[in-house]
Amino acid sequence: MRTVEWVDCKVAMIDQRLLPWELAIVAYEDYHEVAKAITDMVVRGAPAIGAAGAFGLALAAQQSAAQDAASLEMDVDEAARCLIAARPTAVNLAWAVERVRKAAISQDRSADQIRSALIAAAQQLADEDVAINRRMGEHGAALIQDGDTILHHCNTGALATVDWGTALGVIRTAHEQGKHIQVLLDETRPRLQGARLSAWELTQYRIPFDIIADNAAGHFMRKGEVNIALVGSDRTARNGDVANKIGTYNVAVLARENGVPFYPVVPSSTIDLSLATGDEIPIEERDPSEVRAPYGQAIVPDDYPARNPAFDVTPHRYVTGIVTENGIAYPPFELSLRRMVEGAPGGRT
Amino acid sequence: MRTVEWVDCKVAMIDQRLLPWELAIVAYEDYHEVAKAITDMVVRGAPAIGAAGAFGLALAAQQSAAQDAASLEMDVDEAARCLIAARPTAVNLAWAVERVRKAAISQDRSADQIRSALIAAAQQLADEDVAINRRMGEHGAALIQDGDTILHHCNTGALATVDWGTALGVIRTAHEQGKHIQVLLDETRPRLQGARLSAWELTQYRIPFDIIADNAAGHFMRKGEVNIALVGSDRTARNGDVANKIGTYNVAVLARENGVPFYPVVPSSTIDLSLATGDEIPIEERDPSEVRAPYGQAIVPDDYPARNPAFDVTPHRYVTGIVTENGIAYPPFELSLRRMVEGAPGGRT
Repeated sequence: MRTVEWVDCKVAMIDQRLLPWELAIVAYEDYHEVAKAITDMVVRGAPAIGAAGAFGLALAAQQSAAQDAASLEMDVDEAARCLIAARPTAVNLAWAVERVRKAAISQDRSADQIRSALIAAAQQLADEDVAINRRMGEHGAALIQDGDTILHHCNTGALATVDWGTALGVIRTAHEQGKHIQVLLDETRPRLQGARLSAWELTQYRIPFDIIADNAAGHFMRKGEVNIALVGSDRTARNGDVANKIGTYNVAVLARENGVPFYPVVPSSTIDLSLATGDEIPIEERDPSEVRAPYGQAIVPDDYPARNPAFDVTPHRYVTGIVTENGIAYPPFELSLRRMVEGAPGGRT
Repeated sequence: MRTVEWVDCKVAMIDQRLLPWELAIVAYEDYHEVAKAITDMVVRGAPAIGAAGAFGLALAAQQSAAQDAASLEMDVDEAARCLIAARPTAVNLAWAVERVRKAAISQDRSADQIRSALIAAAQQLADEDVAINRRMGEHGAALIQDGDTILHHCNTGALATVDWGTALGVIRTAHEQGKHIQVLLDETRPRLQGARLSAWELTQYRIPFDIIADNAAGHFMRKGEVNIALVGSDRTARNGDVANKIGTYNVAVLARENGVPFYPVVPSSTIDLSLATGDEIPIEERDPSEVRAPYGQAIVPDDYPARNPAFDVTPHRYVTGIVTENGIAYPPFELSLRRMVEGAPGGRT
């Protein structure tokens, strides 16, 4: 089973809000519902929302009553805008939607041919995501030694992607290679993806872990109990600045302070060469009720003020290297990240 | 109303586990219950558990059936051991229990005179705590500028003390002085004292605040939105290393990285000159269920492994200064902290 799939002309996905308690699949027949599912975090994780957006676009074309290609294109464009707007920070939502749109829309095609081409392009993108994750896993696993304890933030596993995972994919590959590893999972407030999703995944894979409060990450690093920190990235600027789940910056600063290597694991689709620095990345502020009510249970009254930035930017000076499907980029990132995006063999480890 | 009081021959305290929803008072007639209340965090905060321990000892003497001073002393000693063992990290639990024991036990006194002396000594300690907090507030408020945003971790207010507070007491004093301040409250997982207790207190005092996930503290510091970070301390070594609520170390490292001054606010009773460094301070590990079930609601199954260190140690190199009732200690701390403990005027700001 994949996190996001095209099943019976619907976009099917695991409802991640119900884990670890219930593994439920929802299937959408309306692309507006897919956009809402992305906003509401039924599906989350940069690669997974990219695939959801791509399938959402195929769904929009299927919904459209347009008879001719030009009319269909207008409907598809409108759906693309709606899907891309569902979440602002991850670049590969826009990248994925644009990619399938461009691959499918063509003046040579009839409306029905475009409809089919959108499904095929989204399917290809999903398949590629899995293959890319496997390649990131191989590159990244070379950084893991037998006996290592790995600090991990948020969820970057199969649930954050179509399958396998990015940073958690590296952990899975290292485990598959027979390395004995231990994982410290930041619970990752406010939405607790580390505790709920990463712990659920590692339980399935039988990889040993401990959940910790985000507050405890520094303590364990200072005690020398962490060998490497692995995280994902929703968008990476060309200078190596990384936007990722709130708290990633804290992990990066604490890691450098304690001599712990810090590696984001990112598909090259999340590298945005158009951005000079991470300060250009829009940071989504989500509803403060996520802070006031962890997992839906209120800890304070509704009228207590709270702030809820969903992402932060980690400046590149804290980044040891960036694992991609084409190898590991090291500083200076402007050069090495460009090689990764271009897939040049010179960029491979 | 005080957080901990001697009322009608009982030890009365606010049950802090019920806040912010309910302000309930519990009254104990058995010192074993007081020790359990400290362990279970009905009462928490280094100065408050010191006062609870002191009143607990007075309660133990009252419970004892001993007719003569020597028998009573044995009962009191046993109670002292029990109360001190209730929590290991805060030094002033032991300090307070020992102080009232030594002040009251005397070969010149009858059993009943010792009983009265214990109550009087505990009462004096509680009164002094409030006076000390007021003096810390005055010293610390000099660090706060009009318009400042203050980052605060855990709860260090009236609820963490007998009344007024340490770091939150500084914030109250600055507010009382008419300074316009804004407070960012780390929610402080796992037990959420920042969200539940500090936010409740600041609501009572009408001091503007926002609750944030602990993960967001770095983001706001990097954005230049924090002017100063204030925390408490459960035990301070003579070199200036500070043991405090888990996550304090993260705040300190992030503060230094972003040029934000970092000040623990500590009564001199929490300074342990017998310790050369913070690495000698025992770190309490609490039940991992606090991580698995924030505020009692399970986010993951009971059998998911978790680790729960309740405190961390912040090395003195991250500490800008240490506010005490006798002034502010600056590096080198070995000299300045000794002056604070001795109350020498040379140590005053």
